[in-house]
Amino acid sequence: MSGFDESPGEFRVRDLSLAESGRRQIRLAEHEMPGLMALRRELAPSQPLAGARIAGSIHMTVQTAVLIETLTALGAEVRWASCNIFSTQDEAAAAVVVGPEGTPEQPRGAPVFAWKGETLEEYWECADQVFTWPGAGPNMILDDGGDATLLVHQGVEAERAGTVGPGTSPGEPGHSAEGEVLRETLRRSLAADPQRWTGIARGIRGVTEETTTGVRRLDQLAEAGSLLFPAIDVNSSVTKSKFDNRYGIRHSLLDGLNRATDVLIGGKVALVAGYGDVGKGAAEALRGQGARVVVSEIDPICALQAVMDGHQVARVEDVVGEADFFITTTGDRDVITADHMAAMKDKAVVGNIGHFDDEIDMAGLAAWPGVTRVEVKPQVHEWTFPDGHSVLVLSEGRLLNLGNATGHPSFVMSTSFTNQVIAQVDLFTRADAYDVGVHRLPKALDERVARLHLDALGVRLTELTKVQAEYLGLDVAGPYKPDHYRY
Amino acid sequence: MSGFDESPGEFRVRDLSLAESGRRQIRLAEHEMPGLMALRRELAPSQPLAGARIAGSIHMTVQTAVLIETLTALGAEVRWASCNIFSTQDEAAAAVVVGPEGTPEQPRGAPVFAWKGETLEEYWECADQVFTWPGAGPNMILDDGGDATLLVHQGVEAERAGTVGPGTSPGEPGHSAEGEVLRETLRRSLAADPQRWTGIARGIRGVTEETTTGVRRLDQLAEAGSLLFPAIDVNSSVTKSKFDNRYGIRHSLLDGLNRATDVLIGGKVALVAGYGDVGKGAAEALRGQGARVVVSEIDPICALQAVMDGHQVARVEDVVGEADFFITTTGDRDVITADHMAAMKDKAVVGNIGHFDDEIDMAGLAAWPGVTRVEVKPQVHEWTFPDGHSVLVLSEGRLLNLGNATGHPSFVMSTSFTNQVIAQVDLFTRADAYDVGVHRLPKALDERVARLHLDALGVRLTELTKVQAEYLGLDVAGPYKPDHYRY
Amino acid sequence: MSGFDESPGEFRVRDLSLAESGRRQIRLAEHEMPGLMALRRELAPSQPLAGARIAGSIHMTVQTAVLIETLTALGAEVRWASCNIFSTQDEAAAAVVVGPEGTPEQPRGAPVFAWKGETLEEYWECADQVFTWPGAGPNMILDDGGDATLLVHQGVEAERAGTVGPGTSPGEPGHSAEGEVLRETLRRSLAADPQRWTGIARGIRGVTEETTTGVRRLDQLAEAGSLLFPAIDVNSSVTKSKFDNRYGIRHSLLDGLNRATDVLIGGKVALVAGYGDVGKGAAEALRGQGARVVVSEIDPICALQAVMDGHQVARVEDVVGEADFFITTTGDRDVITADHMAAMKDKAVVGNIGHFDDEIDMAGLAAWPGVTRVEVKPQVHEWTFPDGHSVLVLSEGRLLNLGNATGHPSFVMSTSFTNQVIAQVDLFTRADAYDVGVHRLPKALDERVARLHLDALGVRLTELTKVQAEYLGLDVAGPYKPDHYRY
Amino acid sequence: MSGFDESPGEFRVRDLSLAESGRRQIRLAEHEMPGLMALRRELAPSQPLAGARIAGSIHMTVQTAVLIETLTALGAEVRWASCNIFSTQDEAAAAVVVGPEGTPEQPRGAPVFAWKGETLEEYWECADQVFTWPGAGPNMILDDGGDATLLVHQGVEAERAGTVGPGTSPGEPGHSAEGEVLRETLRRSLAADPQRWTGIARGIRGVTEETTTGVRRLDQLAEAGSLLFPAIDVNSSVTKSKFDNRYGIRHSLLDGLNRATDVLIGGKVALVAGYGDVGKGAAEALRGQGARVVVSEIDPICALQAVMDGHQVARVEDVVGEADFFITTTGDRDVITADHMAAMKDKAVVGNIGHFDDEIDMAGLAAWPGVTRVEVKPQVHEWTFPDGHSVLVLSEGRLLNLGNATGHPSFVMSTSFTNQVIAQVDLFTRADAYDVGVHRLPKALDERVARLHLDALGVRLTELTKVQAEYLGLDVAGPYKPDHYRY
Repeated sequence: MSGFDESPGEFRVRDLSLAESGRRQIRLAEHEMPGLMALRRELAPSQPLAGARIAGSIHMTVQTAVLIETLTALGAEVRWASCNIFSTQDEAAAAVVVGPEGTPEQPRGAPVFAWKGETLEEYWECADQVFTWPGAGPNMILDDGGDATLLVHQGVEAERAGTVGPGTSPGEPGHSAEGEVLRETLRRSLAADPQRWTGIARGIRGVTEETTTGVRRLDQLAEAGSLLFPAIDVNSSVTKSKFDNRYGIRHSLLDGLNRATDVLIGGKVALVAGYGDVGKGAAEALRGQGARVVVSEIDPICALQAVMDGHQVARVEDVVGEADFFITTTGDRDVITADHMAAMKDKAVVGNIGHFDDEIDMAGLAAWPGVTRVEVKPQVHEWTFPDGHSVLVLSEGRLLNLGNATGHPSFVMSTSFTNQVIAQVDLFTRADAYDVGVHRLPKALDERVARLHLDALGVRLTELTKVQAEYLGLDVAGPYKPDHYRY
Repeated sequence: MSGFDESPGEFRVRDLSLAESGRRQIRLAEHEMPGLMALRRELAPSQPLAGARIAGSIHMTVQTAVLIETLTALGAEVRWASCNIFSTQDEAAAAVVVGPEGTPEQPRGAPVFAWKGETLEEYWECADQVFTWPGAGPNMILDDGGDATLLVHQGVEAERAGTVGPGTSPGEPGHSAEGEVLRETLRRSLAADPQRWTGIARGIRGVTEETTTGVRRLDQLAEAGSLLFPAIDVNSSVTKSKFDNRYGIRHSLLDGLNRATDVLIGGKVALVAGYGDVGKGAAEALRGQGARVVVSEIDPICALQAVMDGHQVARVEDVVGEADFFITTTGDRDVITADHMAAMKDKAVVGNIGHFDDEIDMAGLAAWPGVTRVEVKPQVHEWTFPDGHSVLVLSEGRLLNLGNATGHPSFVMSTSFTNQVIAQVDLFTRADAYDVGVHRLPKALDERVARLHLDALGVRLTELTKVQAEYLGLDVAGPYKPDHYRY
Repeated sequence: MSGFDESPGEFRVRDLSLAESGRRQIRLAEHEMPGLMALRRELAPSQPLAGARIAGSIHMTVQTAVLIETLTALGAEVRWASCNIFSTQDEAAAAVVVGPEGTPEQPRGAPVFAWKGETLEEYWECADQVFTWPGAGPNMILDDGGDATLLVHQGVEAERAGTVGPGTSPGEPGHSAEGEVLRETLRRSLAADPQRWTGIARGIRGVTEETTTGVRRLDQLAEAGSLLFPAIDVNSSVTKSKFDNRYGIRHSLLDGLNRATDVLIGGKVALVAGYGDVGKGAAEALRGQGARVVVSEIDPICALQAVMDGHQVARVEDVVGEADFFITTTGDRDVITADHMAAMKDKAVVGNIGHFDDEIDMAGLAAWPGVTRVEVKPQVHEWTFPDGHSVLVLSEGRLLNLGNATGHPSFVMSTSFTNQVIAQVDLFTRADAYDVGVHRLPKALDERVARLHLDALGVRLTELTKVQAEYLGLDVAGPYKPDHYRY
Repeated sequence: MSGFDESPGEFRVRDLSLAESGRRQIRLAEHEMPGLMALRRELAPSQPLAGARIAGSIHMTVQTAVLIETLTALGAEVRWASCNIFSTQDEAAAAVVVGPEGTPEQPRGAPVFAWKGETLEEYWECADQVFTWPGAGPNMILDDGGDATLLVHQGVEAERAGTVGPGTSPGEPGHSAEGEVLRETLRRSLAADPQRWTGIARGIRGVTEETTTGVRRLDQLAEAGSLLFPAIDVNSSVTKSKFDNRYGIRHSLLDGLNRATDVLIGGKVALVAGYGDVGKGAAEALRGQGARVVVSEIDPICALQAVMDGHQVARVEDVVGEADFFITTTGDRDVITADHMAAMKDKAVVGNIGHFDDEIDMAGLAAWPGVTRVEVKPQVHEWTFPDGHSVLVLSEGRLLNLGNATGHPSFVMSTSFTNQVIAQVDLFTRADAYDVGVHRLPKALDERVARLHLDALGVRLTELTKVQAEYLGLDVAGPYKPDHYRY
């Protein structure tokens, strides 16, 4: 693993000399993360996270660095991994390790285990490392997509069973290479310490989860009665789901497409699979560039929204031969199949901005008889079919805004991460208020996150008079909407 | 009351000879209301509303005519009033009375009590009439804004107290002329039959309510423990609130402004007060015409949405001297005050598309020393201040899309009214399933409403494979989203 | 001709008692026509149009009333007709006749010959009347579409030939009923005075023409060497073509569609035939309402613009079965044929906002075997084909924004009419500077028109420093662009 | 000059080993440049540019590589420099030198003199090199911004005068460091060969110029009677100015901002200075991302367009303290002054996408007392004022889409460069048809460029019938518009 600082048990990043550049970017990002900086100002004096040991797993970007340093400013200890093998910004990882007061020679920041371009084996080793705490184990998880939580739950399950099942074999339905790597990681752990995960799980007060996909997994665990600790669904805060998912994607989709391909978007046809918040942001971005958007949807309500917003709604197969871009935003698998790709126009661009890499059937593509793959540049591959036409697949089917660009801009991550910090504080300091289950943040906290971001955007809020508030049956200070309000 | 058919106890509309024109419009509207027509085809054979006696109070438009005739096609008897003194389309009212098979000489339709331009006294008399059933009283209410429900509740309260309180006097805070008219109506009823409303209320299985404002009133009644029967909050169906409130307003705001003023919207500055669904639709419509929109908001989340959508967010007083249009969408009172209007540009246009006429302080305007009022044309008044500048107030502060135009287009009302019919059927046929409280329609029914409207818009829906559905933990047929999903 | 004031030789409008309402609308319109009002303030003192006798032919609307009264304020005498049989607003016509200082009993305004709903015979009689001047004939023409100019030229041609040719017979290619009416008018004139038009033409200093279509006719006359006097192509001023054609249509298309049909536009598919300025405005308006726009084009440059703006570009026949609206903007004939209409969806809406009624093949439609026509309301007809499907044709194929609504809003007409007044003044006072041919206004005057409209829109213009102006080789005061600049 | 291939007289690029990567990008770009590829297919057989020796000066990007190889495919010899010190893509330069059939060891392509990050001295040396032809000199110039043309004209002038004037001294008004470098280059040339430029100029058949700025210089030369050879203003083709300037900027502005800053654009305020085609594209892009755009303008017509498109129009100083982005698009100098920057919000982003680096007063900024400058990353500098606030200046004030990103996407450059090739062919093969002056391409050729790009965008063009064409007085094959039509 040449080229990496070898500091087993302490940190694993690409190169600490990148820290200076990372620090400069962090300083600029802080300016764009007014919610986190306000929380530091407000809460650091009272150190509400003193005693918290947070196992963190979110894309290790510059913005995450500001999150990490906000958590530590509030008293927490953290260990961090990325939740995606391509998404780490190596300068950010180095800067967090070095810390604002350290030097590459004497790092004084937080342990990070992440670099751009991990193998699957490395990925799960890093995930394992954030739970490998010197002394007392972690007592909080901050997760994105649910891999850290999954690791704990599968570890506990394996330890209960005393063994790690064989999984499916290559070629069987549902088989994934990644599942096999995870199982192998667990087998090693089981061999080393047959009660390790059971002990870790016992110490966890709860998890705060960032994404739709991760929350779906938590809901499934909760429904199955297998959830081991309370969870806060940060994704369901309006200031997270409507902002990060929609406005973040609106920004970073174009950034990813542009850095990857430099291809004109205007005048082209773009298929957006899914019209949830991510799909809405993607469609808005593409239309804003002059593309014609076609949406595919399974949900009649979202389909009706798409058509009322002026987009054609069709199935992928209806437009497969005329679209220039295919963008998946569904969180489901097999949305773009190898058959679809075989039928596309020459040099169609295929990218995923939903969650996992199985939205695009990469395995099916690789298995297509006679297909060839050439790396145009890192994270951009041209797959050529035997008939001569090729498709350009971004980030090997993983999140293109992270793999081909730098993810969401800082401001968007500020709304999202301000929710995370507030959720960590609430869950850590009021753990008794949360039973084992999946919870959402109360609306008052959600509105608070919004309020912390208005000044930076020049917003001048109207204040209800007492008479007006009474007329509506509201408190002047909010919350202003019923819980089921949809915004 | 010359000019009206005098048929006390049977119907009261302007002129039955308008029925032919109304019928023609109804036939065209049916084409644009695919959800209602599909329900007729599906449900008429089983007559699920046989035995239902529905007291209805919704703007008596052509679209409501299609709703009424759908309810009767499903077996219901109805009596109908408008919920707004200006909103009746006289041809529609006449056509409903005449019915598809009747003639003006031999009307065979449903009783309607509504005409364009009622006085407040007439309005509450009409509301009273829809409860004055020959034989058995009504057993269902279909309401818009909650006036029909209010009448029953205030009637019962008066009968419990044995008297109608004096209300406030003119000049006192909170005094409204309309409240006085309502109290007078109740006094007459109390004198005539001191148990009339108590009896009516006992017979009601429930109410389905159309609007945010009406639901807020129901919630207040429920919280106070005063609600007398179950209520279904139709407004909270996604296919109602996101469609009627947003897309309907997007359409009918422009229609109202154009018919009222013929003033160019492009290039002008428009203040939209409130950025809920109605405000979002209004802002989209105005921007789509090339106006620059400034939003005022009390809710930091909605304010953040507005600014992220590219609108300036300011207080009314910040832009009162530079905006050309002032559109209220809040559901609150005193949003545009007389002081605001005194400070506006010459010939600024002021209109309300929220709910009640107190969003604009009409009383304060009328009381402004030296102000004069000239009717430019019906529902458009120029109020001139002593300094010589004037403002154009639409529909005397009531809903401008109804007063100055013909309300929402049929297609939008189809999504809304399909929810109403489904709610009426569910509440009438499964009354036991609903306790006294405020309920929302299950998501499966909401998705069904959407599905009934897709074909007409050329939408081709994608269907989940079994593998995909399992991956998401969903049924192939839906529902596709958790209840708290915000769309 | 009951119902009309019978004042042969003086005026012919529907009812002078409408004048009061018209005057009120004129006063409001003046507020929205800052360019014309500024010209009155600037130029009335010097009476530059004293001695001008203007034969005017533009849609006789409230805005035209402000134009007429601006021309008279500058010293001109005028006589006026409408250039479209449906477009007259009767109140405006009456108010112009009565004048600001007259009464219905003692009208003191200008002679007008126009009412809503003229027959073709009446239309050409009215056109004839504006040339029938008591005493000296007209010396200026202000034209829209070129009918007034056509009348003079065909009159002269007939007088040269000594006869009016037979034209084509019904059934022959190129035959039009209107042509026959025009020829009949000329025959009468020829019988009465065989040198009348020759004399009139001799007295005309020139014409200012409003529209693309009219200019095309002028260009054809000029190319053929038949043009009889100088012409200024007002339509080519940027402040006319880009404003009136684009922003005016953006506004009034929706107004026309809404008043005519009340049909939801959002979510629907709209075919816009042509992507010139009118088509661009139409497409923007429809998209702003949430429709999906498909553009048809013959010009590869405009087609490329349409696709770069995100619209699908296809032929009418490619989408004839899926579009809900068909809007013609081309200025050409047979754009929507009877075959197209026979293949449309049930209740498709067909309207023209280009120029003449032959964009839609009304004659072919009427001749379709078994087709029936029902008037839904004035200017809205449902044509039902033998297979049962129907199409809704607006304004019988004539301009729908004029026939179904009130035309462009005042502000747009202000930019357009300010060009007209400036052109009339320049042509009348500097007639020697214009040879017989088609001219455009110099850019400095075009920029002046723009400047006269900025204050009303709150625009704060930047001023070049002398250094900056020198750097660009410009004068600080403009003009700022080369003549071929396209904006 | 370590790190560069030293091949004086042959080529000067950074590293020929980059050629393979460049070739891959060229192959992808060819797919996005359908106009150029169509010209190769059509014209290569007849070799219309055989004998042409083209001195080329356009940003040396991948797209320019496709242009160069199209010119050579048509028979031309070329020598190439970049017209901007930051805009060269080193892989593209290397690939052109190596050529499609060569190797880094045996390059067989065309001579290129360009690399990313030239000094001013190097820049003018490279410009000089493209005129230093072995054997016969160049006979054609292909220019962007006019520097190559300027060099010839100033060279000739110096040779006429026998000396190079002293220019202005540092500190004097109008002094530029670049001017001094250019004069030094000319002094060396004059010393070496006092008739060199005179001879070169004599051999030039003409120049085709790409940009507004370059054309303005040509117009000034022509007006002054100093123009030495015919020029074709490629910029004025609709398919150039409306596409490259508008749609190209719409795409590449976001790309530049994102790569440079990763700052959220949505919800922010962006000042766009100038509302010509470039400004229109910039405003559309920023709005499409959810920013609120404020436009500054000197031209009342463009200002009126901006406000009608829904943008606030104000002066820079009116919003200097509230905007987050300042984008110059004017082609003028001192648009953003040091005083402006001193008054901006902390971390405001300042970038130029107009033409020269003097739109932003970089010299004034550098001279501000106490200001400091830190390189955040290449082409992104944080300038901190003594009061602590800083501004982020992109590409040192030069074109940010080229300096911070990769310039316009290939498709846009295809419309632009197809015009260039057609212009080179026309000027070279029909030189007699062009007198010494500034010419525009005939509309038929402009329409041809559009036509060559429609298929790739799925456009299906409508064809006029003969009857329709006659009605309009057009040829079925076009051109379809008069020369002054503005699109």
